[in-house]
Amino acid sequence: MPKKIIRLKSSKLKSTRLVTASRELVADVALANLILFDHDILDGFGHVSARHDQDPERFVMSRYVAPGIVTPADIREFGLDSEPVPERGEKHYSERFIHGEIYKARPDVMAVIHSHAPPLIPFGATGAPLRPMYHMSAHVGMGVPLFEIRDFQNEGQMLIRSAYLGRSLASTLAEKPMVLMRGHGATIVAASLHLAVYRAIYAALNAKLQMEAMRLGEVNYMNPEEVEACLAGVESTNERAWALWKKEASGKKR
Amino acid sequence: MPKKIIRLKSSKLKSTRLVTASRELVADVALANLILFDHDILDGFGHVSARHDQDPERFVMSRYVAPGIVTPADIREFGLDSEPVPERGEKHYSERFIHGEIYKARPDVMAVIHSHAPPLIPFGATGAPLRPMYHMSAHVGMGVPLFEIRDFQNEGQMLIRSAYLGRSLASTLAEKPMVLMRGHGATIVAASLHLAVYRAIYAALNAKLQMEAMRLGEVNYMNPEEVEACLAGVESTNERAWALWKKEASGKKR
Amino acid sequence: MPKKIIRLKSSKLKSTRLVTASRELVADVALANLILFDHDILDGFGHVSARHDQDPERFVMSRYVAPGIVTPADIREFGLDSEPVPERGEKHYSERFIHGEIYKARPDVMAVIHSHAPPLIPFGATGAPLRPMYHMSAHVGMGVPLFEIRDFQNEGQMLIRSAYLGRSLASTLAEKPMVLMRGHGATIVAASLHLAVYRAIYAALNAKLQMEAMRLGEVNYMNPEEVEACLAGVESTNERAWALWKKEASGKKR
Amino acid sequence: MPKKIIRLKSSKLKSTRLVTASRELVADVALANLILFDHDILDGFGHVSARHDQDPERFVMSRYVAPGIVTPADIREFGLDSEPVPERGEKHYSERFIHGEIYKARPDVMAVIHSHAPPLIPFGATGAPLRPMYHMSAHVGMGVPLFEIRDFQNEGQMLIRSAYLGRSLASTLAEKPMVLMRGHGATIVAASLHLAVYRAIYAALNAKLQMEAMRLGEVNYMNPEEVEACLAGVESTNERAWALWKKEASGKKR
Repeated sequence: MPKKIIRLKSSKLKSTRLVTASRELVADVALANLILFDHDILDGFGHVSARHDQDPERFVMSRYVAPGIVTPADIREFGLDSEPVPERGEKHYSERFIHGEIYKARPDVMAVIHSHAPPLIPFGATGAPLRPMYHMSAHVGMGVPLFEIRDFQNEGQMLIRSAYLGRSLASTLAEKPMVLMRGHGATIVAASLHLAVYRAIYAALNAKLQMEAMRLGEVNYMNPEEVEACLAGVESTNERAWALWKKEASGKKR
Repeated sequence: MPKKIIRLKSSKLKSTRLVTASRELVADVALANLILFDHDILDGFGHVSARHDQDPERFVMSRYVAPGIVTPADIREFGLDSEPVPERGEKHYSERFIHGEIYKARPDVMAVIHSHAPPLIPFGATGAPLRPMYHMSAHVGMGVPLFEIRDFQNEGQMLIRSAYLGRSLASTLAEKPMVLMRGHGATIVAASLHLAVYRAIYAALNAKLQMEAMRLGEVNYMNPEEVEACLAGVESTNERAWALWKKEASGKKR
Repeated sequence: MPKKIIRLKSSKLKSTRLVTASRELVADVALANLILFDHDILDGFGHVSARHDQDPERFVMSRYVAPGIVTPADIREFGLDSEPVPERGEKHYSERFIHGEIYKARPDVMAVIHSHAPPLIPFGATGAPLRPMYHMSAHVGMGVPLFEIRDFQNEGQMLIRSAYLGRSLASTLAEKPMVLMRGHGATIVAASLHLAVYRAIYAALNAKLQMEAMRLGEVNYMNPEEVEACLAGVESTNERAWALWKKEASGKKR
Repeated sequence: MPKKIIRLKSSKLKSTRLVTASRELVADVALANLILFDHDILDGFGHVSARHDQDPERFVMSRYVAPGIVTPADIREFGLDSEPVPERGEKHYSERFIHGEIYKARPDVMAVIHSHAPPLIPFGATGAPLRPMYHMSAHVGMGVPLFEIRDFQNEGQMLIRSAYLGRSLASTLAEKPMVLMRGHGATIVAASLHLAVYRAIYAALNAKLQMEAMRLGEVNYMNPEEVEACLAGVESTNERAWALWKKEASGKKR
């Protein structure tokens, strides 16, 4: 009986060897899925990836699983062509090209989140510009471009299911931290996975607050100097929130 | 003592024999009740049914129980006249005619959900057309008729408590995936139970987002080509959300 | 040791003898507190009472405890003068006169809920009439008077801390199922405790839906015939929701 | 083994000796963090302090930890210069000057809460005056000044990271119970920690209700006499809510 347990453990180890990124990164990407699910940024759909920490030509992301139930065992590796490495015949997110093409175009980006966060949808659908309400969402003040898929193809297809559309999205994103996608959602990037999660959560909250404020009166948004000063600050305070979110997500019965 | 246990089990088996649909379908209908309750589509009221998987002239649905506490043991069978088979003198939903009449009129429909989902009520009450905000709720783009019960009877009665009113509702629904009911709620159908649950959840979310977007500016809705392309896609991705919802609903202490 | 347990139990019995209402009613009033707290009708404040089931000249209600943590052991009896019977020197809600004066004025009323339910506050503050959105809240269609305390006294005091103000509120309520209180909340009554809980929950939901609908367009409210027809129906379906709410409230860890 | 337990306990005692405030106050400040987190007043950010109960020239507050996971072991002492006493080389909130400068300027203040409570942000961003909707938030009727940091410095920095900015905020607060901070949040004070928590929770709720009411019609706010009468009352009823919040926060699995 104890022998059986040992064998099980060893076979488990072997299977995770397929992933060459560090265990820490793999655990963090799984955790980011749960945190974003707990904060209503992802639901049964959407995905989050991180650039491979040993090989910048790869990224890690879950296989075809709803974010709210992703575990470290679901994390796989992908090349910058957005194809799984190694290819094991598993099902993958059809929009994985969002990730590969952004990692290609943006060497500074270490994490990518694609979501259908509800508060962002009305901004994408109306073209109303998302603007920075308060220091927590200063990144919104760097400018939020709007991706209109009709500018890039005509067949009514709305998802980023090809490298071509991934490149188109990456070119609309340009050097910004996020891009809205009309009738679809948003994609958010950052120089670290923790910061990308922070940005996704507070961009959605900014959207909610902005909708309320616009109905209340003339809004006094942050000015460019304020945006810049806050961006410098947030990078260091971000870990305070991560510690909380990690504890919440880890402690929750699923 | 072991004998007693065996006897209990066998008497349990006998009682479930009254239901002739597969155990899988019965379990799924009970689960759909819990999932829709967890997502605020059903509350103490509303009901969900599936067409019988062995006999297309029947459907399965809970007896008179609040959706949030339905178990497989509550599932019963009904003929297309919306009467229980067999008749056991139990109390049943007075609006069960919604289900029977739609199954009669629509051979393609395999599941029916009748709900009072709050975000849909303002659309029914104002006649403001529900329109497709994003790919997740493309089915809204197939058109959402509005059922006005005053067109079919005059006594102030608002519920679908007769075969006649059920037929009236089915004729307003026509070939669409859902129908709003003024001052009452909505009824949603699909070619599978899982897809009906998906449609109910994202139709309500679409309503919330549309109300926000309409206050924000001119809304750029999905166009017919986009609706069509997305409808093809959702049928296959739907199971990803179901796996999550099933795990959530099953794991929850009730 | 077993003796001690027996003695404890017997002293417990003696103490509950102070309450002469049935154990079932006492348990139901405690449960109603928890249900209304779970549905955001009551928070740390507000109270719910039921007319005594053995003596119509009394009512039962919690002593001075936040609704979310009321247990059967907190339930006390009060005369129609709103004073505790027997007087035990305990602290009581200062607004208990709401209850006594309504029970005096309305022999048909068997339960009274006083709440600060958030969705009702904007209606009280603006005087916008609350109107019936759908069959679930048909009782709103019986008419919802607005109590303006400035009409009855001038010192700035806003709470119903005297029999005089309780009578004033009861006279504004008249024969209706609920009364809004400007800058304060609402008071809801019914011919049974279960129905009063139902009315409180769906009146708040009606308020939310009406605010949304009024921003969406011209609202087609229920007409008087529809209100009347639905009122007859709800009395019988109400217990379906109560069974759910009871299970939820009882199963929750507090 | 029992010896080891004893030694652990004694070393624990020694370490908490660094805090000279009463154990009760330390526990209450930790609890206030959890309560404010549970009510969406604080999230991963913001902080709550209380004036030291043995030494009015000090205050107690958590070290650099997200409010949702603060425990009594995280509570530290600070001088009115907002520096930790003793200095142990730990990281602290950069905005701790909010607390020290208010305690200096306002001898009546026994607790300070700095939050980014979402419903308050639109009022700060638009300058729309927050006004008292109902007796629960009568303190809003004492007047809510708006702090514009651009009036005090020009570099785009938005946080209160110096004694100078802390003094500026305290002078804008003046003798009021709260101050909104444009593009940032709010700071709330009271003569007791429990009352400060109460004020923070109901100020946010007032903001939500006021936004709804303003869209519904002309709002009939509380008048000054009503504000004054309610303020006298709330001080005594406040503990009823605290008992609930304490039980909720303490019983929650974290």
